[in-house]
Amino acid sequence: MVQVEGKHHADYTDFEAVHSREDVLEMLVMSYKSLSEGQDDWVCNLSNASSLLWHAYQSLNVNVNWSGFYITKRDKDDELLLGPFQGKVACQSILFGKGVCGTAASSQETQVVMDVNKFPDHIACDGETLSEIVVPIVSAEGKTLGVIDLDCLDYNGFGETDKKYLEELAQLIVETCNFLR
Amino acid sequence: MVQVEGKHHADYTDFEAVHSREDVLEMLVMSYKSLSEGQDDWVCNLSNASSLLWHAYQSLNVNVNWSGFYITKRDKDDELLLGPFQGKVACQSILFGKGVCGTAASSQETQVVMDVNKFPDHIACDGETLSEIVVPIVSAEGKTLGVIDLDCLDYNGFGETDKKYLEELAQLIVETCNFLR
Repeated sequence: MVQVEGKHHADYTDFEAVHSREDVLEMLVMSYKSLSEGQDDWVCNLSNASSLLWHAYQSLNVNVNWSGFYITKRDKDDELLLGPFQGKVACQSILFGKGVCGTAASSQETQVVMDVNKFPDHIACDGETLSEIVVPIVSAEGKTLGVIDLDCLDYNGFGETDKKYLEELAQLIVETCNFLR
Repeated sequence: MVQVEGKHHADYTDFEAVHSREDVLEMLVMSYKSLSEGQDDWVCNLSNASSLLWHAYQSLNVNVNWSGFYITKRDKDDELLLGPFQGKVACQSILFGKGVCGTAASSQETQVVMDVNKFPDHIACDGETLSEIVVPIVSAEGKTLGVIDLDCLDYNGFGETDKKYLEELAQLIVETCNFLR
């Protein structure tokens, strides 16, 4: 990436000056793009991405209590493993088709869940979570590489705007990350 | 890992009931041990470990602003790459010998730095960081696999107690994580 003079890496999480949800999420996507320039290590890129997600939503006063990734296990095509995240300790393994993350992984469709307790088969990593959005990361060949997962302490935490920008982020992740190593 | 009935994964970050620094850090080491049982994926284990570290120090009212890992690059023995962490966006790559992380990696000795601005060659990912501890993760064969890195917003954030328990954690990480895949 290009280092702007006098700018620290931590400054990329400074979303405070921007206000609307659209603007903050657009800035998040741009920041990910800049940080991943010349870097294809998925752990490195998704670790910074989970930090960008966390601080973007905090700046919007959305009560996000978990932001991060589950990644398809290398030697098992129907299981997700915990990837980089910010928030409290989480479940390590989720089968495709199980809960909100597993459903997004198997259907390859974004899940916007207004009330997780009404979602069949919901896996509660944290009993305090009330709503959730999960966006699949799908390769050009149609393989589910993983999912972006965000939890919220309020009902109806996420909607169409989040879906739009998080799907953009998922696409960028496909283009920038090498998941084979 | 063994799931205790009625206990959510997030509850592992509940350090509030414990008070002394020794007790909290001992509980952190035990929690890592329990969470990594039967799981050797290093991304998964270190993602949860960075959450345990973050919440342990928050519960002690230590102003930790970054807790996480840098991991030795697979195809390059003298470079660290950003691994899972909690906190603001961070530098992606650090050469062995450079700054506090690089010095811990090359010397294989824990660095307790009371004032980062007095450390020669300090790499500032976040201009607000004032003190730091970096603990090397060294394999049984003597290879540096990575480092544990904690930053603090105050001077003198870390001392001998932190060194003792974080070195225990580093040893456990060597025993539980497969870094080859």
